[in-house]
Amino acid sequence: MVTEEQISEILQNYDFDNLAIATVCSHSSLQIFDGARKEGFKTIGICVGNPPKYYDAFPKAKPDEFIIVDSYKDIPNMTDKFIEKNAILVPHGSFVEYVGADNFANLKIPTFGNRDVLDWESNRTKEREWLERAGIHMPRVINPQDINGPVMVKYQGAKGGRGFFIAKNYEEFKENVDPNENYVVQEFIVGTRYYFHFFYSPLREEGYKLSKGTLEMLSMDRRVESNADEIFRLGSSKELEDAGINPTYVVTGNVPLVARESLLPHVFSLGEKVVEESLSLFGGMIGPFCLETVVTDKLEIKVFEISARIVAGTNLYPSGSPYSDFIESDLSTGRRIAQEIKLAKSMDKLEKILS
Amino acid sequence: MVTEEQISEILQNYDFDNLAIATVCSHSSLQIFDGARKEGFKTIGICVGNPPKYYDAFPKAKPDEFIIVDSYKDIPNMTDKFIEKNAILVPHGSFVEYVGADNFANLKIPTFGNRDVLDWESNRTKEREWLERAGIHMPRVINPQDINGPVMVKYQGAKGGRGFFIAKNYEEFKENVDPNENYVVQEFIVGTRYYFHFFYSPLREEGYKLSKGTLEMLSMDRRVESNADEIFRLGSSKELEDAGINPTYVVTGNVPLVARESLLPHVFSLGEKVVEESLSLFGGMIGPFCLETVVTDKLEIKVFEISARIVAGTNLYPSGSPYSDFIESDLSTGRRIAQEIKLAKSMDKLEKILS
Amino acid sequence: MVTEEQISEILQNYDFDNLAIATVCSHSSLQIFDGARKEGFKTIGICVGNPPKYYDAFPKAKPDEFIIVDSYKDIPNMTDKFIEKNAILVPHGSFVEYVGADNFANLKIPTFGNRDVLDWESNRTKEREWLERAGIHMPRVINPQDINGPVMVKYQGAKGGRGFFIAKNYEEFKENVDPNENYVVQEFIVGTRYYFHFFYSPLREEGYKLSKGTLEMLSMDRRVESNADEIFRLGSSKELEDAGINPTYVVTGNVPLVARESLLPHVFSLGEKVVEESLSLFGGMIGPFCLETVVTDKLEIKVFEISARIVAGTNLYPSGSPYSDFIESDLSTGRRIAQEIKLAKSMDKLEKILS
Repeated sequence: MVTEEQISEILQNYDFDNLAIATVCSHSSLQIFDGARKEGFKTIGICVGNPPKYYDAFPKAKPDEFIIVDSYKDIPNMTDKFIEKNAILVPHGSFVEYVGADNFANLKIPTFGNRDVLDWESNRTKEREWLERAGIHMPRVINPQDINGPVMVKYQGAKGGRGFFIAKNYEEFKENVDPNENYVVQEFIVGTRYYFHFFYSPLREEGYKLSKGTLEMLSMDRRVESNADEIFRLGSSKELEDAGINPTYVVTGNVPLVARESLLPHVFSLGEKVVEESLSLFGGMIGPFCLETVVTDKLEIKVFEISARIVAGTNLYPSGSPYSDFIESDLSTGRRIAQEIKLAKSMDKLEKILS
Repeated sequence: MVTEEQISEILQNYDFDNLAIATVCSHSSLQIFDGARKEGFKTIGICVGNPPKYYDAFPKAKPDEFIIVDSYKDIPNMTDKFIEKNAILVPHGSFVEYVGADNFANLKIPTFGNRDVLDWESNRTKEREWLERAGIHMPRVINPQDINGPVMVKYQGAKGGRGFFIAKNYEEFKENVDPNENYVVQEFIVGTRYYFHFFYSPLREEGYKLSKGTLEMLSMDRRVESNADEIFRLGSSKELEDAGINPTYVVTGNVPLVARESLLPHVFSLGEKVVEESLSLFGGMIGPFCLETVVTDKLEIKVFEISARIVAGTNLYPSGSPYSDFIESDLSTGRRIAQEIKLAKSMDKLEKILS
Repeated sequence: MVTEEQISEILQNYDFDNLAIATVCSHSSLQIFDGARKEGFKTIGICVGNPPKYYDAFPKAKPDEFIIVDSYKDIPNMTDKFIEKNAILVPHGSFVEYVGADNFANLKIPTFGNRDVLDWESNRTKEREWLERAGIHMPRVINPQDINGPVMVKYQGAKGGRGFFIAKNYEEFKENVDPNENYVVQEFIVGTRYYFHFFYSPLREEGYKLSKGTLEMLSMDRRVESNADEIFRLGSSKELEDAGINPTYVVTGNVPLVARESLLPHVFSLGEKVVEESLSLFGGMIGPFCLETVVTDKLEIKVFEISARIVAGTNLYPSGSPYSDFIESDLSTGRRIAQEIKLAKSMDKLEKILS
């Protein structure tokens, strides 16, 4: 694990008037680059092989330059290239996946956010410990033998929604489970999914105050899951199963939505609790995070997961959302990240938001 | 019921250069306050206990001040507070529910819109009379014994979508109905739901002309219903029923959408008919209203309900919708309400839009 | 078929400083007129009988004038009226349907885009030839006797989604098919639908380069299909069928969405292939087109249809989309069409984009 001192030392040689924001060319990079440019930063795209051509179609979001790697696993050997460009990495959901968790933890490049969060977020047991200590209601974990209603079976570190299935009883569980995989069985919460996009700032003073900073909610989305979102046109899950077709939950995109305003106090209290607990557990989560929830017909909100970085659902809102428009116009999560870096620079507190 | 004269008398003592727009802190208050501020009005949030903290996260939508009540039922005893601040109440969907229908009708505070609409809207029989007299196609009311296809069973005054169920025959009806409740059985219209957000102005002269004013359509949405929108991942409604799980229709949020442009003449004619009939029945509905419809595969539009005030679906569009953008940019329904009050002030006709 | 020479001759008498953009008052006309006005063009609405009143409600999108016809079939006899106004027709999805394919092909009025595309797009066999030659993955065509999994049965020239059905085996096929109609049986691709809105410019040089022009992706949507999108609240397709209720696929509107950024290279390559193949097959498709796809849980993209003109899904974005915002702000597909005409005029190359 890279230390605070190491990052601090690197930063001492940075030219703060020529900072560049760098990320891997995927996931939410369009809005990260677009937002960084709007706040006056240079931008660097990290890619394997040739720069992706699709940026040519989106000139406002095309990075100023590219750092080309043979493999994302090589980034640790190329830190000099980043450092000489005064680069700050902005990790997104695919960044860690591509670079590898160990590489990411050890990467000697200043990185937006607190890298300690990774440990707590990527392990389902620690994630649950974090959220439950925060007083968050999660779906109950169930012993397979005790299944007596619908459950969601999740494999460890499922990527993009692959590796989930729903079982309605122990027989269905046994029939479908892969015993060689590490899995968790949770009660299936009947309701509708909402993904809330928060931003925690340890620096901004005006706003929704927490013990040591402020909390924003910039937007929300619902993920589009292939093939679960449309398979029911063919038949009920039981009929499909009999025909050998199984619903899957791979995320292919996102749809925008808003929640009842009367839910907002509850939504904010969830964000608040998670941040406060992160402060005591590991020094605090910084910047964007997402609570992945189900809202039930009793208007309860069950949190089934947390993402401690920018999520792809924010791609719906490169020029503002029905919520961020009440903060300032044209505010994406990507831009908000750039604003935080700019604020830290102006307060001479970059070390507070980088790791 | 408060009289025209009483409101008129109150208004005589108002300082028209310092009007304030007040509403209860919930439902669609963020856009009502944001819109009012954009039109130059002061804003007052009404809340129980402490002001909701979530406004701190949305500075552009935070009211200038709060009037704190012990209970919304106390508002009738606090009219002086509102009057001394030159307040105009903007009732939203939850306002009447919180304050109580009788209290609302008698409230001696100038209120946007025509309060007489409440009688017609809150009673399913009168609502149907209004809409059918207007020539609107509604789902047929069915005698339970005559059920021979899917029906929707609705209890009186169901709030936020609770207290509905679908039955496909008389047996299912009998099994599920609560005979102690006041209910209505309607044919279930197979199609997709559209909620059209209209605005009727008795003052504006340019636009889509009706007999005495103009009609706008500012946006549309589809409500997200928990758990009906996602429960079918578990099984068909029949399979779920056998497992003791029932779909419910509690609204938790809204998704944006647009309708085929070729439907617009029909959509506008529905809005037109409802307004014209309201003019002859009770002096006219003023400001925002919503027609809650199902569009069938024959491209018929069946109206199953009307809301005679701002609906929460408009929360999707605080900075404009795919429709209001053709009127002017950055136009929310909340802002449109403030514009109407401003126009009435400038024309010296506030009494025409307040009650 | 009208010839290049005929159009060229007509254009020679046009006053290029007073061009007008004309289209039929339906489908996507609001954004076409709004976009044309933003680029400085006059606008002409073509309608049967009186001008539709709904334009009065959308002043920014109301055409400057109307050309009223008794029937759209009469337009060929009224070309003088269009020519004297220096009109350029912008055909949208309903335009060809209303005017008739033969009339459209022969219409002696300068028309945006390449009319030769119609032949390839409106005939399912030629459409498939085009797309498969381009290397696009389409759902397989299946011999009815060989059905051994879910299939989609489509009738020729189905309008707005009517005339499709899903069968899971040969028996279901036989039971439901109308043997008097011309039909095609395709494998049913299990996944979620995405409709990608592209724009091909033979003139613009900056951007995502193809062999002879540039490609943009302005937005995407998912169509709302009545009654298929909500019918499963009543029961599974099998249960519904037993009850004599059949899902239908009539498009009534559209919802916005975004796709995973990691899909974009694939999405663009699909657009690229289709354009390149169109260049060799018939001189190239010009302007807006839409690929109608299913994204599977393997993140494959299967194209089930192409529309070679502006689609109604773009109506979601009259002031920009989460994608076009990275090109320039306030950019609709309608406006993009007007920009292309303006650019052609300034380059003195109108003949390159008109036919």
